[in-house]
Amino acid sequence: MDMQTAKERALRIREEQAYIRHAMGLMGWDLWGALPPEGRPFRAKASAYLASINHEKITGREALELRDYLKPRLDEDVFENEYERAAIREFVKTVDEQTILPFELQNELREVTQTGQMVWREALKAKDFQMQLPYMQKLFELEKKVAECKKPDQPVFNTLCEGVDEGMDVEQIERLFTELREGLVPLLQRAAERDRDVDESVLHFEASKPQMQEFGRFVVETVGFDFNKGSMGEVLHPMCYGIGPKDVRITTNYSRGAIDATMSLMHEGGHGMYNYSSNEQALKYGLWGGISGSMHESQSRYMENIVGRSREFWSFFYPEAQKRFDALKNVPFETFYRAFTRVKIGVKRLDADELSYSLHPILRFEIEKAYFDGKIQVKDFEEIWNEKHREFFGMVPKDAAEGILQDIHWTSGHIGYFQSYTLGNLIGGQVLEKQLEENPQMYEQIARGEFAPTLEFLRENIWQYGRLYTTGEMVEKVSGKPLSAAPFLKYLQKKFG
Amino acid sequence: MDMQTAKERALRIREEQAYIRHAMGLMGWDLWGALPPEGRPFRAKASAYLASINHEKITGREALELRDYLKPRLDEDVFENEYERAAIREFVKTVDEQTILPFELQNELREVTQTGQMVWREALKAKDFQMQLPYMQKLFELEKKVAECKKPDQPVFNTLCEGVDEGMDVEQIERLFTELREGLVPLLQRAAERDRDVDESVLHFEASKPQMQEFGRFVVETVGFDFNKGSMGEVLHPMCYGIGPKDVRITTNYSRGAIDATMSLMHEGGHGMYNYSSNEQALKYGLWGGISGSMHESQSRYMENIVGRSREFWSFFYPEAQKRFDALKNVPFETFYRAFTRVKIGVKRLDADELSYSLHPILRFEIEKAYFDGKIQVKDFEEIWNEKHREFFGMVPKDAAEGILQDIHWTSGHIGYFQSYTLGNLIGGQVLEKQLEENPQMYEQIARGEFAPTLEFLRENIWQYGRLYTTGEMVEKVSGKPLSAAPFLKYLQKKFG
Repeated sequence: MDMQTAKERALRIREEQAYIRHAMGLMGWDLWGALPPEGRPFRAKASAYLASINHEKITGREALELRDYLKPRLDEDVFENEYERAAIREFVKTVDEQTILPFELQNELREVTQTGQMVWREALKAKDFQMQLPYMQKLFELEKKVAECKKPDQPVFNTLCEGVDEGMDVEQIERLFTELREGLVPLLQRAAERDRDVDESVLHFEASKPQMQEFGRFVVETVGFDFNKGSMGEVLHPMCYGIGPKDVRITTNYSRGAIDATMSLMHEGGHGMYNYSSNEQALKYGLWGGISGSMHESQSRYMENIVGRSREFWSFFYPEAQKRFDALKNVPFETFYRAFTRVKIGVKRLDADELSYSLHPILRFEIEKAYFDGKIQVKDFEEIWNEKHREFFGMVPKDAAEGILQDIHWTSGHIGYFQSYTLGNLIGGQVLEKQLEENPQMYEQIARGEFAPTLEFLRENIWQYGRLYTTGEMVEKVSGKPLSAAPFLKYLQKKFG
Repeated sequence: MDMQTAKERALRIREEQAYIRHAMGLMGWDLWGALPPEGRPFRAKASAYLASINHEKITGREALELRDYLKPRLDEDVFENEYERAAIREFVKTVDEQTILPFELQNELREVTQTGQMVWREALKAKDFQMQLPYMQKLFELEKKVAECKKPDQPVFNTLCEGVDEGMDVEQIERLFTELREGLVPLLQRAAERDRDVDESVLHFEASKPQMQEFGRFVVETVGFDFNKGSMGEVLHPMCYGIGPKDVRITTNYSRGAIDATMSLMHEGGHGMYNYSSNEQALKYGLWGGISGSMHESQSRYMENIVGRSREFWSFFYPEAQKRFDALKNVPFETFYRAFTRVKIGVKRLDADELSYSLHPILRFEIEKAYFDGKIQVKDFEEIWNEKHREFFGMVPKDAAEGILQDIHWTSGHIGYFQSYTLGNLIGGQVLEKQLEENPQMYEQIARGEFAPTLEFLRENIWQYGRLYTTGEMVEKVSGKPLSAAPFLKYLQKKFG
């Protein structure tokens, strides 16, 4: 074998895998959309079959031979460019992981998450943690096994977090979270006290679904979401699906009114724009879509919060909202914006204001860490959740639906994932600091409805690179220094202090 | 090899193909739905890749060995039951066809249809047949090549029609169409004359999309469409997609108002119910979904016309429509129903009333036949279309959008397909005759909103069998005699005479 042939064959395998994953991605998106209930069993078999083709491809004789040839040459000067090197590195890593990980374990994981997610919907309705418990126990055990297979020599939780945020370790995350909590908690208490009597009711007005859809679409399109590269739909739980290189599906939910639905679209639109903005090289080498975990969350939260919850953003869009929604006609801007940015300590992560939000994922991260440190068991999660909730927020959820069951993540196998939301906030703060340094006019532009410079900065410095870098490398590259909580705290201080 | 092993392995290949086709079906449905325009190139590659896996599976060494072993044994007494025999027969037939047909030819066909369909949308907008011409020429040539490969010994057009309606030949179809035209034309002329001054405007009232959606859903659900086995969406061109054994997607379009949208849903719902009602044996042996072509069209048109355009149907649903749509409140039922069943000679197949409808596909069938008989060329289609239109309807379309370009079929490679709509009407007439013989109360039941007996007859006699029989066999089995135009003419005579 020569290098050229080896590279070509490895890239060809990656390309074929991308096609199969495209089909599986479409199936995943459809699962929560148009798939009728009785269609699920056949769907499960079809998707398992595609997964098996995919697995064969990356663990077959050809892939192993290529891995053995390529692995010792990863650092040599034999690549066209850094994208090619990154693609081949990803290939080697995937072969390593997939050959180490028993396929039965992966199948079991897929089956338990699929059933678990359906049971979760029922458990949530019944507000009953016990219904969900067996699946959660099983999933924590399975994820533990996965991590032990992948990296037998390091603590399980480290491996899980690394799988989400490559280039970040648990110790570093804990340090960042401590720094954040110390700055954030006093700020939160003061702001919540100050905002106690702010009336939020102006935000929750009646509107028809087409009206809400049209407004949401108008906002994200004006900001710059390109409907030639993405479409917009409705689901139970807002999500962004990256299905192909220029094919994202952003979704929202209209049950909580026009303003909430629009903010969800801004959030998913941030994921979407990051996803579809990979440059030609990233596309060519199958590195499109962006870095998963905190880097992706940083971009969605940037669009939702740093852009979308700014005074300037709404000073631009509010007149349009008033034109479209009768209920807002007589509500002055200040009344609206105070309600919109009200700080209010509550139980739900997804309902949380921008200031208290970051604490919710930390709570979950601490529970996960305690479990993997062997200090607690899954059966005690509800109790521990409620205790921690009192410690963090001075109050306790009234039932499991408001507490431990509120997120689908653990049931869908996303364990070691929550930290990425809060890390995403920190990254966003650090990116904002840099962006304001380069373009101090950013918010004035937003107030005039000029979003292009803001988006251009993100595209230029982050979005275009796809998965070329790890999270740590990307943060350093864009901001010139390692991640810290200070810029985000500074941003919060200015906005809420 | 022994018979048991051979059967199992062949059935396993069929199963794997069904999973891949499931993914491809989902892609096809999504193509007209949420796929954003710039996502198309990657989608095309992914779908071509899945097609190549599928092709490999059925033309690989294993499949050929199995075919060679199984083919001479198809009529032996070695099958569990007739479903197993039919499944193995289908396997052998598919291997034969796929090995004879060059994969490059199939790829070319897929590529030309994909691009052609996108160009068709533009050509339709521009009302310009010349834009579409190169694709249409290419597709007629390619389909000719396909037919020549499949069955070098028989006329091309016979092979194409047979591919859609197994067990029907061109001569038989021509005989049926002659019989139908002779009875239909005078009836049509009288009815169109009589209805000339009927005011249709009551049908075209304003309503919001959610109102239309809810009414449409209410109607098909009341009739018996099971939303556990199917979902409902919106597209440019109403269609029914059978994606899995209990997974159909019916779609409609709201641009022409609530009544039209509801009739489209009844039509697609008929396809859908036929599709998802296969019995356990048909499911087990991968014969679910129903017989394509005229048999499927017969069921959609049965639900749309024989059930859904009956006086009894609307005497039941009209009060509900009046409750929901203000515009109908003061419109008496007779005024509505006369407008709804107005006979009016026009240019569009999809706008045609129930009586004139059958002539539109015959016009297209005659053009196809003349082409394959070598009498005309594709470049002359627009002129010939217009001439024939004058001959059939006494008038000429004002442009290509109203004429030759109105249907997507030829551009999507459906050549030799149109006859199935009119044949579907004939089959429907024959099924109705039988059903009324067994249950003379059918229409009285419909007037009371009791649809179960009507559906049960269809399920029992047609739907449950999936693809076990050919079209010809199925017609004889359900009605006890070969297909004729007489029952459908009798039905039309009674309704419009």
